Amino acid sequence: MTGSIDARLAQLGLTLPTPTAPIANYLPFVVAAGLIFVSGQISMGPGGLITGKLGRDLDLAAGQAAALACGLGLLAQAKAAAGGDLDRIAQVVRLGAFVHCTDDFVDQPQVVNGCSDLMVAVFGDAGRHARSAVGVNSLPRGVAVEIDGVFALHP
Amino acid sequence: MTGSIDARLAQLGLTLPTPTAPIANYLPFVVAAGLIFVSGQISMGPGGLITGKLGRDLDLAAGQAAALACGLGLLAQAKAAAGGDLDRIAQVVRLGAFVHCTDDFVDQPQVVNGCSDLMVAVFGDAGRHARSAVGVNSLPRGVAVEIDGVFALHP
Amino acid sequence: MTGSIDARLAQLGLTLPTPTAPIANYLPFVVAAGLIFVSGQISMGPGGLITGKLGRDLDLAAGQAAALACGLGLLAQAKAAAGGDLDRIAQVVRLGAFVHCTDDFVDQPQVVNGCSDLMVAVFGDAGRHARSAVGVNSLPRGVAVEIDGVFALHP
Repeated sequence: MTGSIDARLAQLGLTLPTPTAPIANYLPFVVAAGLIFVSGQISMGPGGLITGKLGRDLDLAAGQAAALACGLGLLAQAKAAAGGDLDRIAQVVRLGAFVHCTDDFVDQPQVVNGCSDLMVAVFGDAGRHARSAVGVNSLPRGVAVEIDGVFALHP
Repeated sequence: MTGSIDARLAQLGLTLPTPTAPIANYLPFVVAAGLIFVSGQISMGPGGLITGKLGRDLDLAAGQAAALACGLGLLAQAKAAAGGDLDRIAQVVRLGAFVHCTDDFVDQPQVVNGCSDLMVAVFGDAGRHARSAVGVNSLPRGVAVEIDGVFALHP
Repeated sequence: MTGSIDARLAQLGLTLPTPTAPIANYLPFVVAAGLIFVSGQISMGPGGLITGKLGRDLDLAAGQAAALACGLGLLAQAKAAAGGDLDRIAQVVRLGAFVHCTDDFVDQPQVVNGCSDLMVAVFGDAGRHARSAVGVNSLPRGVAVEIDGVFALHP
């Protein structure tokens, strides 16, 4: 049985990555108070890690692709948290986005749109979310973008 | 009809900005689990964006004014989330504050007090909140401060 | 009466610090929606603040000790939030970790394991949590690590 969100993903030509298991003493997600708290997903594409600094190594389009990769990771984890059924997700509540960038890079929101647009393409209005987008001087393994998320489950 | 919090704002001589609508695929706030998650508000004053790096371009007082501007943005969004009635806010739960600063600037907490003091001036004890305050090397559009928030609604 | 988590702390030879009261207009924690939101805890050890930049001033072991110190601070605040009884904590839900580091430092996850490992040592499976770990160019008072947390209370 395929849910409507899975069908929408297929229609968009999107394949979710295999949700990665943290190697350390933490979890990819925790469910509490009806909310799924998903760990920060780093920009890992089908070809491996997307690394580099916005404003120096990557242009806006590459940054948006990195944010999209984080978004696919978030969806993969949210699906696992929802017992494999993305139709159980009621709302994308919040994204916390960190963009690895130079001191004078100021287009973090445009970068993060790569993830925000994915959520709306997949969930429609239920994909619209609160978010923050900030720059940082360094991210794990040199990745370009890291995004954590909060999703609400249907009661 | 004016609520008691609106009256308090007037008494303090504070005017909330018109809540800004994001241009991209996200929302200024989402309500879930009885909590209002408000998107990161950048330091935008009546005279426009408050930009620059703490420790280089702005002194502490200017940083606090930037944090206050973020706080007014948070209140404007929380009011919209509460259907226009700030009296429906039970508690300011959490602020996540990012201060655009030099590597050797260490007074992020004092900067963010510009927002924290506003919350307590407006809500009294219900304005006291958990928070984090960190430095970052860059923020959207070069602003000095970005703060996101979580508010609890009365049941 | 000593709870089982207190006994576990004693068994591990760990002593929680006296929970520090913020000097400014914010709180060490707020409880809402059955969740404890704990303010960002800076790396303060028994010998004082643990300061410096990972990648320049501190090696990985020192960074992990700083993250552990943040974790003890989080536990002290969570205990206070739970009325002094850590057995009332159902789950460590989420950690938001900020590592003060050079631009080319990429081992933030390994640093933050100092806190994550503590949570699992103390709470077992209930200590496993979602988390994000990012680098920043500066933190309050020059500390090495700041970590905020969300904990769930037993209903």
